[in-house]
Amino acid sequence: MIKAGIIGATGYAGGELVRLLLGHKEVEIVWYGSRSYVDEKYAHVYRNMFDIVDATCLDDNLQELARQVDVIFTATPQGYLASILTEEILSQVKIIDLSADYRIKDVATYEKWYGITHKSPQFIEEAVYGLCEINRDKMQGVRLVANPGCYTTCSILTTYPFVKEGLIDHHTLIVDAKSGTSGAGRGAKVQNLFCEVNENMKAYGVATHRHTPEIEEQLGYACGEDVTISFTPHLVPMNRGILVTAYASLKKVAYPDGHVDYPTEDMLLDVYHKYYDKEYFVRVLEAGMTPETKWVEGSNFVDVCLKVDPRTHRVILMGALDNLVKGAAGQAVQNMNLLFGFKEQEGLELVPMFP
Amino acid sequence: MIKAGIIGATGYAGGELVRLLLGHKEVEIVWYGSRSYVDEKYAHVYRNMFDIVDATCLDDNLQELARQVDVIFTATPQGYLASILTEEILSQVKIIDLSADYRIKDVATYEKWYGITHKSPQFIEEAVYGLCEINRDKMQGVRLVANPGCYTTCSILTTYPFVKEGLIDHHTLIVDAKSGTSGAGRGAKVQNLFCEVNENMKAYGVATHRHTPEIEEQLGYACGEDVTISFTPHLVPMNRGILVTAYASLKKVAYPDGHVDYPTEDMLLDVYHKYYDKEYFVRVLEAGMTPETKWVEGSNFVDVCLKVDPRTHRVILMGALDNLVKGAAGQAVQNMNLLFGFKEQEGLELVPMFP
Amino acid sequence: MIKAGIIGATGYAGGELVRLLLGHKEVEIVWYGSRSYVDEKYAHVYRNMFDIVDATCLDDNLQELARQVDVIFTATPQGYLASILTEEILSQVKIIDLSADYRIKDVATYEKWYGITHKSPQFIEEAVYGLCEINRDKMQGVRLVANPGCYTTCSILTTYPFVKEGLIDHHTLIVDAKSGTSGAGRGAKVQNLFCEVNENMKAYGVATHRHTPEIEEQLGYACGEDVTISFTPHLVPMNRGILVTAYASLKKVAYPDGHVDYPTEDMLLDVYHKYYDKEYFVRVLEAGMTPETKWVEGSNFVDVCLKVDPRTHRVILMGALDNLVKGAAGQAVQNMNLLFGFKEQEGLELVPMFP
Amino acid sequence: MIKAGIIGATGYAGGELVRLLLGHKEVEIVWYGSRSYVDEKYAHVYRNMFDIVDATCLDDNLQELARQVDVIFTATPQGYLASILTEEILSQVKIIDLSADYRIKDVATYEKWYGITHKSPQFIEEAVYGLCEINRDKMQGVRLVANPGCYTTCSILTTYPFVKEGLIDHHTLIVDAKSGTSGAGRGAKVQNLFCEVNENMKAYGVATHRHTPEIEEQLGYACGEDVTISFTPHLVPMNRGILVTAYASLKKVAYPDGHVDYPTEDMLLDVYHKYYDKEYFVRVLEAGMTPETKWVEGSNFVDVCLKVDPRTHRVILMGALDNLVKGAAGQAVQNMNLLFGFKEQEGLELVPMFP
Repeated sequence: MIKAGIIGATGYAGGELVRLLLGHKEVEIVWYGSRSYVDEKYAHVYRNMFDIVDATCLDDNLQELARQVDVIFTATPQGYLASILTEEILSQVKIIDLSADYRIKDVATYEKWYGITHKSPQFIEEAVYGLCEINRDKMQGVRLVANPGCYTTCSILTTYPFVKEGLIDHHTLIVDAKSGTSGAGRGAKVQNLFCEVNENMKAYGVATHRHTPEIEEQLGYACGEDVTISFTPHLVPMNRGILVTAYASLKKVAYPDGHVDYPTEDMLLDVYHKYYDKEYFVRVLEAGMTPETKWVEGSNFVDVCLKVDPRTHRVILMGALDNLVKGAAGQAVQNMNLLFGFKEQEGLELVPMFP
Repeated sequence: MIKAGIIGATGYAGGELVRLLLGHKEVEIVWYGSRSYVDEKYAHVYRNMFDIVDATCLDDNLQELARQVDVIFTATPQGYLASILTEEILSQVKIIDLSADYRIKDVATYEKWYGITHKSPQFIEEAVYGLCEINRDKMQGVRLVANPGCYTTCSILTTYPFVKEGLIDHHTLIVDAKSGTSGAGRGAKVQNLFCEVNENMKAYGVATHRHTPEIEEQLGYACGEDVTISFTPHLVPMNRGILVTAYASLKKVAYPDGHVDYPTEDMLLDVYHKYYDKEYFVRVLEAGMTPETKWVEGSNFVDVCLKVDPRTHRVILMGALDNLVKGAAGQAVQNMNLLFGFKEQEGLELVPMFP
Repeated sequence: MIKAGIIGATGYAGGELVRLLLGHKEVEIVWYGSRSYVDEKYAHVYRNMFDIVDATCLDDNLQELARQVDVIFTATPQGYLASILTEEILSQVKIIDLSADYRIKDVATYEKWYGITHKSPQFIEEAVYGLCEINRDKMQGVRLVANPGCYTTCSILTTYPFVKEGLIDHHTLIVDAKSGTSGAGRGAKVQNLFCEVNENMKAYGVATHRHTPEIEEQLGYACGEDVTISFTPHLVPMNRGILVTAYASLKKVAYPDGHVDYPTEDMLLDVYHKYYDKEYFVRVLEAGMTPETKWVEGSNFVDVCLKVDPRTHRVILMGALDNLVKGAAGQAVQNMNLLFGFKEQEGLELVPMFP
Repeated sequence: MIKAGIIGATGYAGGELVRLLLGHKEVEIVWYGSRSYVDEKYAHVYRNMFDIVDATCLDDNLQELARQVDVIFTATPQGYLASILTEEILSQVKIIDLSADYRIKDVATYEKWYGITHKSPQFIEEAVYGLCEINRDKMQGVRLVANPGCYTTCSILTTYPFVKEGLIDHHTLIVDAKSGTSGAGRGAKVQNLFCEVNENMKAYGVATHRHTPEIEEQLGYACGEDVTISFTPHLVPMNRGILVTAYASLKKVAYPDGHVDYPTEDMLLDVYHKYYDKEYFVRVLEAGMTPETKWVEGSNFVDVCLKVDPRTHRVILMGALDNLVKGAAGQAVQNMNLLFGFKEQEGLELVPMFP
């Protein structure tokens, strides 16, 4: 049984972490950090926790926390962790950071897209990008995990095998993503009021969204080249869920009989299976199916599928996940399981809830 | 490890039963019955179950099923189970019936409100009304459980203590209930299409809804008198959740110092606590709080609270539950736990999902 | 052609006023007042108005406005108009106040329920309560109209005929009301965020909501007695719409043949028709129908119907309206039409939008 | 005053036609055709029309109808009109067809994508594709108008100027479209039930949707070349609205000073303005804005805007409309106005409703 602390426990991702960790056999939450609600009962902030969590919110004292717990989850605004992290802290505790501070290896890229100066670039190198399905073998002995972004996780897992295998021309890759509104956080903003979001849909952050360089960097590792993509997020009137629809031109391949042609849908599905059949949390749907966000809601699954368009020689790659689970808290727990040698699915064998 | 079969596994309540039983340590589902989808993969009907349930839907063969399993859940249309149940079947297996067939002890009342002839009234007497918080001690050795209706569960648990204690005048009891749309089932009807329900609200079944006599019968047992109430259900544009707002005139009580007056809010809250503090699944909120359906979503909890209106000497009693969990499948699992001597919370320690 | 100014033009009610007045042949909006958005283009605040409204938001200068326009609509916080209204202003311009400042004739009642001191009680007497269907004949030469609240309009129009005719025992009247979220306004509050409201339902302001005394006062005028009711509002995950479900015990009446008994459903429907057949904006549905908020959305209609419950001798009265139209801006325009002698339906012959 | 008949008046597009024509000064609806509801009151099918439309639904007798009215709107299933249309009918009446039967000039393409044999190809040539902003000058004396599809209208108006001006490489054009659920029609299907659509999002008809060839044909006319695009529709949990996000690689252009480079965002916005400033129903948003479906709801507007991504040299083109108005009934009325020489905006000066 390890002890965990959460900084930013009253945001939506923090709340989901609490929900998941309460069902985890090997962890006890001992610190519900929330600067905004210090001294308030956690169950007053999230009343689903009534009679379940008795704790009171504590301040964000990272040093004190490092002494008390085995792992800290930071679900904090961009730049916050980077501004307070020290070697002393890292020598005492493992940190799984749900913010973007250590996701991007190139500091200049981070500073450009986020518009802030990185206060502790010395830790970027050692931080492991916690996309478990790809970096599982780098988790040994790690102190700092950069938990991937929600859009990023869905975008990468949906496209990664084909970028890595060189089956698509990554210069043509376009990711059109749609997200539920919990991704916008619990801040009180007019644009996120019920009446503004409900019965409405829009794109935002067009060509400028911060998850873009994160996707590009990881796909770049996959193919060994610089990758530059188009990425457009959209806000959808639902609480949870990310749906990615990605487009890319296929590259011709050599067939067994020697002729060169575009790969078939079956061949591409086989690639998905090659990468993901061993992955518990990635479900490769059957040909003809399309992922739906509702079918993964509340779970740590990513559903992927694809469709080849023979008229344009493009493949349409599709993926769906729950942005608060596999896109945030679930993945963080999965990373914790890897860090501490727990069974990877522990606490995460959640059956999606429908309807 | 017992074996369970579900008849009607492809309705919304059936689907929720599957979700819950998959997380239950003592049960294995061996029969996914669905007349409409015989021979189809269950995971094709409910794609949240992809990679989780490999089974294929089977026909509704109750006799065969009775031989194979320890418990049968019937989530079937009204009258179906009553028309096929036999002593032979009941001698082999326990049945938890999610339909209304054995809920009402008075056959004439059942036949009048449901408009059908009861085909096996001989089993009504032995059937236990499976509202665990009230009938827990009657579950010993029982073969047939009548699982309560969704509206009924919420209405009864919200009002029961005050009817039983004689603190309200039951002749004045009015239950205004609001339900998410999953309560309307998965049948393809125009009135339940997204565009008809979304951005809309209406009452239905006004003064004629079938859960009325069920509530009345149970409350009648509580106070030892015939109870006749007003009950109005409403359809709300959300998937899950029932909210009950009940109104009743308070009766004066004798205070310790001998004077007679209306009870205070604190006194009434104490009554809730007296009845429910020992109940894991009933959460008595703090004074001033009002139950919200979202705070119990996905869980087996019922949240209750109340408000005294000194201007009218009425009490407003409020309760919220997830109609598919505590209002259907969760309660069925709770009943199963009681029948088989499992821990009552087994498989049901679900933290509500928010948002 | 008259000139109109709006103070509070950037709230939801203000925005709806703009939408309606743009379709009105006799009015031109010349002042879009909004303290929060002074000097911003109105069409930037409400982008539905792009290319339609070219104006820029102005400050709330009531004195200046009184000189420039014929009618001022004030969609402002409680207490604001009362704190700045003067005889000089009222001598220059007609004011239709969408706030509660002049709705309640009894100052003590206003101050108790609203918790503020009334700053200009001298104008209360002359203010006409602008529920057109009831006070149409009092609108002659009026300078100040108190536009009724949204819940109030729906509650009164649904119950008024039966209170006035003495057909129900008003001591038993219970109004259970449900509202879309636009009623909560456009303020940035966590509790009104999409993720908090969506897939959720709750009661609020139980036994304490400020529309209660407003309903009571008007129903009191109807029957000539003090009326005290139970009123419970609920928040529903939809943008627009109020649904009222009201319960009351019937009083026996003398039948033509001399015997005394409870009135029948037909007799009560006749009463609705007697009061509302001449009213363009009140639609009495056919027996067996129940009002749905979607069927009046975007229009100035109120749909009403009723159901008699012979088991309890109660009548269930139901009404639905669009809270931003008949519940706010539409009624304000209807009042303006009466004040200026325009056709009462001018600008309001809106066909409800479905779906 | 002309007389209009509607065949298919009880579908969602038919219902919207009724709503719009009721507000049109020059038209009277004399025939509410609905095979499914013959002899039922129209206001029973669409209760928003209670007290407004007194008519009863009639059968789909095209010949009789042709004798009685000046214009027929057919909102019927694919293939229906083509199977019954005759020269005799067309010689008597103008027809505006909201189905796809005469949209595609190439019969083989129609038959391939729709999987049905075209029964009256002889009328295809004379049918004018009723995208008013593009084909306004072809409407003189026309007898048969093929009203464009909802996705098509949004996709074409969003991309047309740049295809026509040769500013984008049409081989790279990808249209990712999102639609509210009213686009799926009022048929009772499980997949369109509230609980299946709500809190969910999915792509459908990937690489096979029937609006694809319609978009391609029209864009082909614009640039004089065969156009083949990727088009992916998505289902969104809202009633109304289509949002199009289109991606295309920019082509370099000659600048005034002679150098050749990619066009800037301002240059592209100028192109939008060049095409649409004279168009009442197309609103070109300001740089940096993105269209939102809610801002056009209930109106005949199409909002468009764009963003240049200098990293990829792509332009992201965005458009939003109300699928039942500009995407169906509103455009049909606009076509009628052109056919009969009415003012083009007559009956369509609808201010979008927010929220």
